[in-house]
Amino acid sequence: MTDVRPEEIAAAQERIAGHVHRTPLFQSETLNRALGHRIVFKAENLQRIGAFKLRGATNTLRALKEQKALSDEVCAFSSGNHAQAVAYAARALGVKATIFIPKQASGVKIAATRACGAEVVLTETRQIAEASVAEYIERGATFVHPYDNPYVIAGQGTACLEALQDGVEADAVFAPCGGGGLMSGTYLATRLARPQAKIFACEPSMANDAHRSVQTGEIVRLNETPRTIADGVRTLAVSERTLSYLSQLDGFYEVDEAEIILWTQWLTHLLKLTIEPTSAMSMAGVTRWLKTQTAPRTVLVILSGGNIAAETLRQIWAEDHLTQLPW
Amino acid sequence: MTDVRPEEIAAAQERIAGHVHRTPLFQSETLNRALGHRIVFKAENLQRIGAFKLRGATNTLRALKEQKALSDEVCAFSSGNHAQAVAYAARALGVKATIFIPKQASGVKIAATRACGAEVVLTETRQIAEASVAEYIERGATFVHPYDNPYVIAGQGTACLEALQDGVEADAVFAPCGGGGLMSGTYLATRLARPQAKIFACEPSMANDAHRSVQTGEIVRLNETPRTIADGVRTLAVSERTLSYLSQLDGFYEVDEAEIILWTQWLTHLLKLTIEPTSAMSMAGVTRWLKTQTAPRTVLVILSGGNIAAETLRQIWAEDHLTQLPW
Repeated sequence: MTDVRPEEIAAAQERIAGHVHRTPLFQSETLNRALGHRIVFKAENLQRIGAFKLRGATNTLRALKEQKALSDEVCAFSSGNHAQAVAYAARALGVKATIFIPKQASGVKIAATRACGAEVVLTETRQIAEASVAEYIERGATFVHPYDNPYVIAGQGTACLEALQDGVEADAVFAPCGGGGLMSGTYLATRLARPQAKIFACEPSMANDAHRSVQTGEIVRLNETPRTIADGVRTLAVSERTLSYLSQLDGFYEVDEAEIILWTQWLTHLLKLTIEPTSAMSMAGVTRWLKTQTAPRTVLVILSGGNIAAETLRQIWAEDHLTQLPW
Repeated sequence: MTDVRPEEIAAAQERIAGHVHRTPLFQSETLNRALGHRIVFKAENLQRIGAFKLRGATNTLRALKEQKALSDEVCAFSSGNHAQAVAYAARALGVKATIFIPKQASGVKIAATRACGAEVVLTETRQIAEASVAEYIERGATFVHPYDNPYVIAGQGTACLEALQDGVEADAVFAPCGGGGLMSGTYLATRLARPQAKIFACEPSMANDAHRSVQTGEIVRLNETPRTIADGVRTLAVSERTLSYLSQLDGFYEVDEAEIILWTQWLTHLLKLTIEPTSAMSMAGVTRWLKTQTAPRTVLVILSGGNIAAETLRQIWAEDHLTQLPW
């Protein structure tokens, strides 16, 4: 079911231009010197709503509008950045949005979704949030799936495409993998704009369903929401669609919680950016891959977002890991 | 002793071009909408070494080199960003740097200063660090004072000058005040490039020596290092030179520790930048000033830096203040 062609990333880029930020690239002199390689970070934490998710939501709603297939009511489920993304993209088009959010989600994210003008319905569990959209879809609302949607995938791929257009001569591209939307889009963008580059996904060891799905060729579904600190990739399962792209990657890196915290501290320190643990996770994979390389490499890292609850920050900074070099 | 002319900020800018970053400007849509005003942030946290201090150190050493007055040995005392700034600027010119740092300083800052190639001498107290440079000066080393130096002041002013050149139509400019170097430079840059703008300094209530010095017309010296979380402005006293500029400001705002923590959380959240408490402090003054205004205003805020120890971050995030709107 590889139904998104690489060219559709370029079409998405044209469609969402002016409605999302073209985010900047960052490098750390200290990090590059320490590693002996060049690491270029695409700062989607500086995207509107603080995450790349706005790209996919905007592309989906605008593509449907072009096709006169956009309802005047939009719905979605999410415990995270997709909620704000759909709310923001819907408001920009003057369309009503209803977002189902499990009540365990962070207060900051719920408030931010409401601030984008969406109606937020809190549910007992993630499963109920997912089931609740059915009624809305039946009555004709437009549903935006967080990753199992070709327009969402194409939209998410524009972050990588922009970076490659901006001159990053990447030997490898790294991004985090949850449901696989960002990863699939990143794969397609790289095939389009820099086919010689390797592409790697990073996933928490305790939420390694995507990696196991690729290994077994069948979707592995987690029984319950994993407790990884990387809350952007707590998805229970990938989809047939995203699995078809994930299977074509050059590899997966599984990352421990301690490594995620270590790199969140260090990227906060080195880049002076607020970065979600999900984003920092990639660096554990990058350093492992670089150890297999014999020549200086350029690596593109897609920083997925910067929305962190105070409680998560307290957890991240509970101990000082800046005394320990992560390379 | 107002010995720096506004034009010298422009001369400093030319001198340090290419040796420091021209840092970007940031705005938060959410913040602007909530306040009904436009707040533009100059992101010196993204400056090399993570703080504006590199500007003053670079301007001083390069000006002395032009005059053939630069020794092959440079010294400074600092518990913070000035240490790294002098170390970095000296290395760029191939000059040896010795920096005296009180041992209470954060390990991260000591390591970063060493990483810039400087010799670091740890002292028992801040007072001993300050006294230790005398011996080096006697034997001919070039001493770079953290603020009481016309070239340092001119260099620090280039951050504000850049922002004003980049089109910020500021009605008011806010910056934090420690020894007064940044504040004096900011005053001069504003006089040069946007004389109609008001200029305000922000200072912790528990370290309000600069404000009291301006009020009394005499330098008020703190007896011991204040325990404010805004560790960039723990200086014990301003100098005659900086007081001469501080006396010409439009006002001071004294800020409580709770306000500093509140705004550090909120700017981290809104701007997705790593920001020192010292930098966030300004927003408490900004919101108070805006309440006196009857028309929409544009405010320029100089974010001084982003170097924070893990211990300080733990203190900042000990409680969740994102549930409390700061406006």
